[in-house]
Amino acid sequence: MRWHAPQQASGLCLCSSNSGNMTTKKDLEAIENQISTIQVSSHEETVDPVLAHGGFKTMEQRRNWGWLLSGFISLNILLLGIAIVSGSVFNKVQITSSHLLIFLIFLVILTTIWMVYYKIHTSRVCNAVLYKDSHAGPIWLRGGLVLFGICSVIMDIFKIVYYVGRKDCESPVKIAFPVVQALFVIVQTYVLWVHAKDCVQIQKIITGCGLMLTLSTNLTVWMMAVTEESLHQTVAPVNPSSNISSNGGHRSNVTSQGRSGNSECKCIHDMCDVFEKAYFYLYPFNIEYSLFASAMSYVMWKNIGRQMDEHHSHNLHFSLWDVLIGPVAGLIILVAGLATFVMYEVDVAKEDPKKKEEALIMHYTMNIVALLLMSIATLVGCIIFRMDKRDPVSAKSPTRSLDVGLIVGSSLGQYLIYYFSIVALLASGVQGHVNRLDLTNSILTVIQLCLQNAFLIKGLHREPFKETETASVFTNVMAVRERDLERRSSSIVPAHTLPMPLKLLQGQLPWKRRILKEICTFLLFCNVILWIISAFGARPQFDNTVGSDIFEFQTWAAVVNIGMPFGIFYRMHSVASLFEVCLIS
Amino acid sequence: MRWHAPQQASGLCLCSSNSGNMTTKKDLEAIENQISTIQVSSHEETVDPVLAHGGFKTMEQRRNWGWLLSGFISLNILLLGIAIVSGSVFNKVQITSSHLLIFLIFLVILTTIWMVYYKIHTSRVCNAVLYKDSHAGPIWLRGGLVLFGICSVIMDIFKIVYYVGRKDCESPVKIAFPVVQALFVIVQTYVLWVHAKDCVQIQKIITGCGLMLTLSTNLTVWMMAVTEESLHQTVAPVNPSSNISSNGGHRSNVTSQGRSGNSECKCIHDMCDVFEKAYFYLYPFNIEYSLFASAMSYVMWKNIGRQMDEHHSHNLHFSLWDVLIGPVAGLIILVAGLATFVMYEVDVAKEDPKKKEEALIMHYTMNIVALLLMSIATLVGCIIFRMDKRDPVSAKSPTRSLDVGLIVGSSLGQYLIYYFSIVALLASGVQGHVNRLDLTNSILTVIQLCLQNAFLIKGLHREPFKETETASVFTNVMAVRERDLERRSSSIVPAHTLPMPLKLLQGQLPWKRRILKEICTFLLFCNVILWIISAFGARPQFDNTVGSDIFEFQTWAAVVNIGMPFGIFYRMHSVASLFEVCLIS
Repeated sequence: MRWHAPQQASGLCLCSSNSGNMTTKKDLEAIENQISTIQVSSHEETVDPVLAHGGFKTMEQRRNWGWLLSGFISLNILLLGIAIVSGSVFNKVQITSSHLLIFLIFLVILTTIWMVYYKIHTSRVCNAVLYKDSHAGPIWLRGGLVLFGICSVIMDIFKIVYYVGRKDCESPVKIAFPVVQALFVIVQTYVLWVHAKDCVQIQKIITGCGLMLTLSTNLTVWMMAVTEESLHQTVAPVNPSSNISSNGGHRSNVTSQGRSGNSECKCIHDMCDVFEKAYFYLYPFNIEYSLFASAMSYVMWKNIGRQMDEHHSHNLHFSLWDVLIGPVAGLIILVAGLATFVMYEVDVAKEDPKKKEEALIMHYTMNIVALLLMSIATLVGCIIFRMDKRDPVSAKSPTRSLDVGLIVGSSLGQYLIYYFSIVALLASGVQGHVNRLDLTNSILTVIQLCLQNAFLIKGLHREPFKETETASVFTNVMAVRERDLERRSSSIVPAHTLPMPLKLLQGQLPWKRRILKEICTFLLFCNVILWIISAFGARPQFDNTVGSDIFEFQTWAAVVNIGMPFGIFYRMHSVASLFEVCLIS
Repeated sequence: MRWHAPQQASGLCLCSSNSGNMTTKKDLEAIENQISTIQVSSHEETVDPVLAHGGFKTMEQRRNWGWLLSGFISLNILLLGIAIVSGSVFNKVQITSSHLLIFLIFLVILTTIWMVYYKIHTSRVCNAVLYKDSHAGPIWLRGGLVLFGICSVIMDIFKIVYYVGRKDCESPVKIAFPVVQALFVIVQTYVLWVHAKDCVQIQKIITGCGLMLTLSTNLTVWMMAVTEESLHQTVAPVNPSSNISSNGGHRSNVTSQGRSGNSECKCIHDMCDVFEKAYFYLYPFNIEYSLFASAMSYVMWKNIGRQMDEHHSHNLHFSLWDVLIGPVAGLIILVAGLATFVMYEVDVAKEDPKKKEEALIMHYTMNIVALLLMSIATLVGCIIFRMDKRDPVSAKSPTRSLDVGLIVGSSLGQYLIYYFSIVALLASGVQGHVNRLDLTNSILTVIQLCLQNAFLIKGLHREPFKETETASVFTNVMAVRERDLERRSSSIVPAHTLPMPLKLLQGQLPWKRRILKEICTFLLFCNVILWIISAFGARPQFDNTVGSDIFEFQTWAAVVNIGMPFGIFYRMHSVASLFEVCLIS
């Protein structure tokens, strides 16, 4: 049983036509591995972690010069990108948005060329990809990528139409960028759809650098999109001469001014305003697209040179009939949230202080109810996890580590905003009904974030439940231990033949799974509505002026504009993770 | 041989007096472990990483609810700290520095109480600490902690004297804080000196939360110190009414104004100004102290529940007679750097534009020469690492991961500043001699950072060279493989009995080690001077106005003030890491 992986390696390599040398070497390695598999009884794992981590040698060794080089390439591109994006925001004359767009066009074209090269090269060389990581690029991620990719292409088309209409007064680069970006999105979506699970074995250095280039390009595009979107949502009331105000921003409390300062520029067709509004509504999808593509290229980069089995997959299924209360309650919250969101947007747009206060009260009340219910549900979920003695997963996967890292990392944005709110509200003395609601809302958000993070981390680190399991119970300690150890080497045998840990067979009750699934679906819908509210432009942080009164407006705007995109991504990513937790519960 | 760890565990536990239940459980586990060690021939490691990482199960399992709880405690304290620190900087009335100090006093007292409790509890319970991590808390780190701790206590004494002198017009909290902080520093230095290597086995949840509390307290103190220091170094020329300007700042281009706005406040003794200057010069040491303490408490937190052997240590020694050119060249750079730094500070203080330009030219020229030599030396070092086939280390240690993380993470601050400089200089058209030198300096810094990071990462991931090795060469492949696997389980046998990998015995030449040691010592001295220049207040980023012209002053000041403390820490930490690389070369 233990010979499967090396056998597969040598078997597959024989078909290689243009790398005979490599084949011989690989064969030799495979034979050596087999010999050592027979000969060596390795050390015991559970006693000494240092010993246990001996297994990491392969990972450490993979982290060679190519790894460093690709890391530095990515780091440098990203930091240069940050500097240029900041420059284009704060400087009026020397660093225009055209400079930024030229930099981005260069990056995007380079990445597209690399992806085409990668596609061609891996198709031609037979042993380029010997293994697939079954955890990488799950269907929801790839599906989301395609969905957001389509929205991004539509956004690019709208942008092209808009800038063609203004071609007399705008730089031609502004038309060129969406054209190049649309092409890039199409090529990248295709390549990631097909190759997301690849564990590349050849040209590791070039592939590593290429993937890091892809990552950096996507993150730079993301940064630009986030900046544009934030500037569009926020209109600074203190600095009307600043060129960071938006044209067509829906909060018209200052003189609207074009990004290039040429508000007298006429559109050659009548649809400019419509298309501009439309493409700004598609920005959140483009932002998500970039993050999805970044996450997938990062996982591919982590999987370079990794050797694992491709047949290791869990046949998970999801039936809507398993759950009832969760989705229904979630849908109620979703519909209520949508209704209040629309009313909020309408009321706030009226610029009437009284209407605005009413809108804020409604918004906070809605949020408080949702957060309270979510917190209770998550707490129940955590208690069930605590009671349930199912084993945590043993294998470390880059996808899961990335998931957890992204959830905790992106939640920092939300934490930051709400801690700043709490401090501002406490410092202002919490005067008035609105501020009391705001404080309750902020504190509840922080609690809900902590609980949901704990729930997701614990949920993602559990072995999937397998229903086809034969319920044989072992009483002999030795037998259990041997089964347990066999289970650890599970990834080279088909999943359905695996024995389950003893505890699961004894303690698992259907009502726990049912409740967990209900909780997951409920939280899923709640996160969707919280995502919609933030992504489509509700900014109570600016509509309630406490934050900008206590901190200076610049600081407050920076906190909100940096924290908000992460918050939006957090809700989005939570939805995906909750779906996964729901499946494996 | 493989039984050592479990035997030790059971042996030590028998002395426990107040936890009989635990002893029985531990014994049972130890026996179980032994049985499984005999019975099980575990899977082969080099074939499948997923299998290999099965060893991580113990680590994943340790990451239980206590781990989550302590993480969330730390996260929440830190974010609240960020919000309050920001509030105290940007708000004049509602959030004063007294509020921040009260928050800090609360944190510091809580942490001190926990540390005293920890010390007493672990001393009384016999099996509280069964294992020690030999990599944690190396002597240079603990030595540095004591050194910086002493400086911090002196700083606190100076602060007390200064604020006692102004006690009629300053809040008593400002006297209370340094008193509490001095006590905290003494207790913490003692506890970390004694317990830095602990792998705590009892009360894991409480210990985890306590260590995370310690980490958060140190980081919050660090944040406050960095903010105070940055505000002191930077005087905003655009906003004279702002209370963020310093009193006694040495760049007096705006009206100096007290932090509390009471510049008419009289000191009751004559030494206020002297003490204020003195304690500001001690800030860099306090900042380093907080970071050292944070790093050590983080490593202790990572080591909670870890089981490893305490006798695993390398007898490394360092002789000054091994190296000659490196230290001499380094000392020359150090002295030249010190001389130009003093001249620079004197010239810049004169406020004469011509003198300032001369000072900048001298500063940049000095930096360019140093960076060029450092880059060449580092490149040679990297090439030697590439030629040298010595195995990378196999065992994963939290200390090394942290070291690498801190180096790469703190270098981001430097990268950020210099990429912003490059963009600003290019956007301004690189006019004049000063700007050309500035651009060269910025580009060279980025290159040097990349090279030095690569050198340090590679250097820290190498097995220490052991000179007492017997040079027996194995030709039988099977024998080598068995030896190699034995080596992996090295940490349970004394280090000096370990066989060396085959490659090392064949390819190692003394001249390589000699050159590496020369390079390390040279880089060490260069990093010391770069640390001194930044830590003691040279800010060419503000003296050359290109950056603040291109970006707005606020943005530029934010970039420099956020990036600089990380840059200072980077140079400091590089010195320590270079010393370690020098030892293991």
